[in-house]
Amino acid sequence: MNRHAILHKSDSLYSFALTPDTAEIRLRAAKGDISIADVIYGQKHEFSLHRKIARMNISASDGLFDYFTIRLNLDDKRLAYIFLLTDNEGNKYYYSEDGLTETYDFSVAFYNFFQLAYLNGNDIFPRCEWLSRAVVYQIFVDRFHRGVIPENSVKSSETAACDDFINLKWGDKPTSKSFAGGNLDGIAQKLDYICDLGVNTLYLTPIFTSRSNHKYDISDYFSVDPHFGGNAAFDRLMTACKARGIRVILDAVFNHCSEDIKQFRDVCEKGKRSPYFDWFVIYGEKPTKRPLNYEVFASCDYMPKWNTANPEVQEYLCSVGEYWIKEYGIDGWRLDVSDEVSHEFWRKFRKRIKAIGADKVLIGENWHDSSSYLCGDQFDSIMNYAFTKAMLDYFVYKKLDTAALCDKLNELMMRNVTQANLMMLNLLDSHDTHRFYTECGKDENKLLLALAVETFMPGATMVYYGTEIPLEGGYDPDSRRCFIWGEHSFSKRVKELLKYKRLRALTDGDAVFREQNGAIVIERITDGQKVTLIVNNSDSSVCISDTSVKPFCYKVIVE
Amino acid sequence: MNRHAILHKSDSLYSFALTPDTAEIRLRAAKGDISIADVIYGQKHEFSLHRKIARMNISASDGLFDYFTIRLNLDDKRLAYIFLLTDNEGNKYYYSEDGLTETYDFSVAFYNFFQLAYLNGNDIFPRCEWLSRAVVYQIFVDRFHRGVIPENSVKSSETAACDDFINLKWGDKPTSKSFAGGNLDGIAQKLDYICDLGVNTLYLTPIFTSRSNHKYDISDYFSVDPHFGGNAAFDRLMTACKARGIRVILDAVFNHCSEDIKQFRDVCEKGKRSPYFDWFVIYGEKPTKRPLNYEVFASCDYMPKWNTANPEVQEYLCSVGEYWIKEYGIDGWRLDVSDEVSHEFWRKFRKRIKAIGADKVLIGENWHDSSSYLCGDQFDSIMNYAFTKAMLDYFVYKKLDTAALCDKLNELMMRNVTQANLMMLNLLDSHDTHRFYTECGKDENKLLLALAVETFMPGATMVYYGTEIPLEGGYDPDSRRCFIWGEHSFSKRVKELLKYKRLRALTDGDAVFREQNGAIVIERITDGQKVTLIVNNSDSSVCISDTSVKPFCYKVIVE
Repeated sequence: MNRHAILHKSDSLYSFALTPDTAEIRLRAAKGDISIADVIYGQKHEFSLHRKIARMNISASDGLFDYFTIRLNLDDKRLAYIFLLTDNEGNKYYYSEDGLTETYDFSVAFYNFFQLAYLNGNDIFPRCEWLSRAVVYQIFVDRFHRGVIPENSVKSSETAACDDFINLKWGDKPTSKSFAGGNLDGIAQKLDYICDLGVNTLYLTPIFTSRSNHKYDISDYFSVDPHFGGNAAFDRLMTACKARGIRVILDAVFNHCSEDIKQFRDVCEKGKRSPYFDWFVIYGEKPTKRPLNYEVFASCDYMPKWNTANPEVQEYLCSVGEYWIKEYGIDGWRLDVSDEVSHEFWRKFRKRIKAIGADKVLIGENWHDSSSYLCGDQFDSIMNYAFTKAMLDYFVYKKLDTAALCDKLNELMMRNVTQANLMMLNLLDSHDTHRFYTECGKDENKLLLALAVETFMPGATMVYYGTEIPLEGGYDPDSRRCFIWGEHSFSKRVKELLKYKRLRALTDGDAVFREQNGAIVIERITDGQKVTLIVNNSDSSVCISDTSVKPFCYKVIVE
Repeated sequence: MNRHAILHKSDSLYSFALTPDTAEIRLRAAKGDISIADVIYGQKHEFSLHRKIARMNISASDGLFDYFTIRLNLDDKRLAYIFLLTDNEGNKYYYSEDGLTETYDFSVAFYNFFQLAYLNGNDIFPRCEWLSRAVVYQIFVDRFHRGVIPENSVKSSETAACDDFINLKWGDKPTSKSFAGGNLDGIAQKLDYICDLGVNTLYLTPIFTSRSNHKYDISDYFSVDPHFGGNAAFDRLMTACKARGIRVILDAVFNHCSEDIKQFRDVCEKGKRSPYFDWFVIYGEKPTKRPLNYEVFASCDYMPKWNTANPEVQEYLCSVGEYWIKEYGIDGWRLDVSDEVSHEFWRKFRKRIKAIGADKVLIGENWHDSSSYLCGDQFDSIMNYAFTKAMLDYFVYKKLDTAALCDKLNELMMRNVTQANLMMLNLLDSHDTHRFYTECGKDENKLLLALAVETFMPGATMVYYGTEIPLEGGYDPDSRRCFIWGEHSFSKRVKELLKYKRLRALTDGDAVFREQNGAIVIERITDGQKVTLIVNNSDSSVCISDTSVKPFCYKVIVE
């Protein structure tokens, strides 16, 4: 047995509460090393006297490890436990905080058992169930559709459908400075199309006032950009979405803002005399660009970074977060560059947002292992770029073969607690990447197979606008082309696929990934329902237990 | 190379900020497997273009693993990094979020580098330096010394030195119901003795009004128990401590209270009509003892558990925490049964306490791996019972030989971030354990050697009252015997030892533990100072580079 491979940690993603009466316990071991993994558990204060034993199952395996898992229903909220492991030669080992031992003295177990000392309800990470069912359509607003103000609307100056900012003919290749004129009325007027595709949630890139086309440099967090139709257009969009049961997620750009924002302008003018000086991080008397003496996003001097350690900034950004939920009824926030903003701020922000509604979601733009943000005190979810990478490595770069892909996806399941997995925002691409369709050589079959895998991943399925037609695009700004309206045969195939998202097993079920006969097999299982996806990314048919799948096709079996 | 042994995780105890410009990075590998570990690092947004490389050192080794560490001084707060590992055959591997690979494509590194995305000042765990220098004397108040009210004090009914509750003759063996009459004036009148021993901090078991001798069942958090002399006596004690520069830590019993407390009495009387019903966790209309239908500490029906998810309870307990700091100037709290209280509450409590003073410390009674409490958002420290266990396993139970002890102590250093190590409350015993002296067969030499190891551990050194004389005692209530006043030769040896605590290397230095010629060798090194402790727990002399250490003795070398 590879002793170095064994891993467990109390009060971590290896040991957490699912509900006030249920704990999930995971144990990692070298692949194939352990024939039996039992957990010996009991009430913490009586562990030396009374204990139960339960068998764990392998819930996932990757290239190196088996992950044993058990969900324990508890009579008492105070859990102590150790493991009893049997290797392939029949040797038995106890595993506690003191590591592997051949014997174990239960009379002094209080020193070294593992524990969930008390399953406190306010520490438990709750799942927003709607996010598990969500098919999220990400729209880069300037490029989706240019709508007109409805005739019966009040035409204020704010909502005037002025055209003179538009400098890109719809369909021409965009540059970083292009304005094509897509707006919120345009989205509202295409909701039938969006719904018909199987989408139930919109995620809009930023809509607040900003001089850029992408609007990630916001100069007023309390107004919708006039180019997008202003607040009145957003109100119309929200009304139309609510009428159809479509949820809306907006983009919260809280790492940085625009140099145009009044607080930064005041600092530029008054330096340290400005009440907003400490709202930013400035190394000097006044912000200067050459040399750049203030913190910014990346190296963009026009995007000063907020000092989110400042309670006044925290209050300001929390009030933005609250405002659009309370006043317009949005369903949550995608959090831009969230990993560069402090944990402390996000903890406060979560409390403020969840106080309005537990079903208001927070989705971080964290590209990396983010379990420190996904414990229940900060985000509900992140954009699952680790999944994106796995899809690229398999379908595009061929770095992973089918077995290695399944290993990777299993590994990703063990990177976070179960609740986070079930709310993960899975994606193939976004405004920040090349389009997957272009990456895979404009192969519709491959795009569809990747979408099929994505649809079967636990969590939400995000579709970047245009994927369904499918739209081409390299890296930014090319990934932000204008939508091409008209009939597209591919969208029917996407629509057909997304229907599976309604199955209960895809919402609630655990996922297991395995390679079989060269195909990816994904099983989602919940009480009373099992759904299997077979993805054949090869040029010959494969047969999996009586089901034949043609080359570059997928099949779904509902049991 | 044992690939399964390699471990690293972003934004964890393997990767954390020490200061706004310094990151500590750790990497675990199988012992002896890696000949060179380099970290390749750079500014996150430019990592594909500009990178540095630095060599890591082995900072600790245990029975299974080597831990490589480096502290990086950063020009930019946004850190991306991967590892380059060379095994003993000279093979090189990159290690990223995608695991070990023979090649690495820096152009797509943004998908899988490790990162500290931004070293936000408000997320950094600051060290309270005084805790690293602290020699903490834990006093079980009822058994230390019975003092008299000073003549010039106001004698109120509260502070009347009533004797009629005393049912234990000083020096007789205590039972769980014994009252010996020790009080706060008694402590104040022995401060010269305490100071002379080398103590600079007191930790008192609970002093608030309670019917028991231990007072862990509190019925009034805002009054000092009259048996201990009431608030006036505490005021006298604090004044005396401040005059001598002695800090005072009190015991915060926030997991549970006494059934006598007014809030619980109200609930017993009024059931669900009581405004305090939700201050507890009650499964029914009213609390009943048979069957027990409310949550309690352990199985003690007279100690109802607070519902620390209730914001009113949170506010109440925070106000207790604030009151004794603001009104009496205490220096921090030891947090009873802290692992059964919610993280959410502790986060709030920390903010409230640290708002009064960053040097007010919070020390959890967590017996187990507690890195989830020691990230900077909750506790500063915990009672280091894992160290206690290691000392028992070595000096008493002989489960560890000298090499295994050093392995264990090195492992404990890698269980928490550096800041937590430097504030850890190390102890050999407490009111909740057998006395170490009794456990080791009343062997003064062994007790002294264990104390020497403890003194050289990073963090505070806790001495349970009476250890210095040395007092005998089995498990509670025997571990709570009356102090025996008079001359004791052993206390001189303790005093001599504790003097080393003043050395800068013992306050700030990293610690390395190793077995050499059968002795424990502990090195504490800081800029410009190196202090070495050699502990010879054998019946023959040992010689370590020209220094001879007699059987069952220790030596200290200051360089």
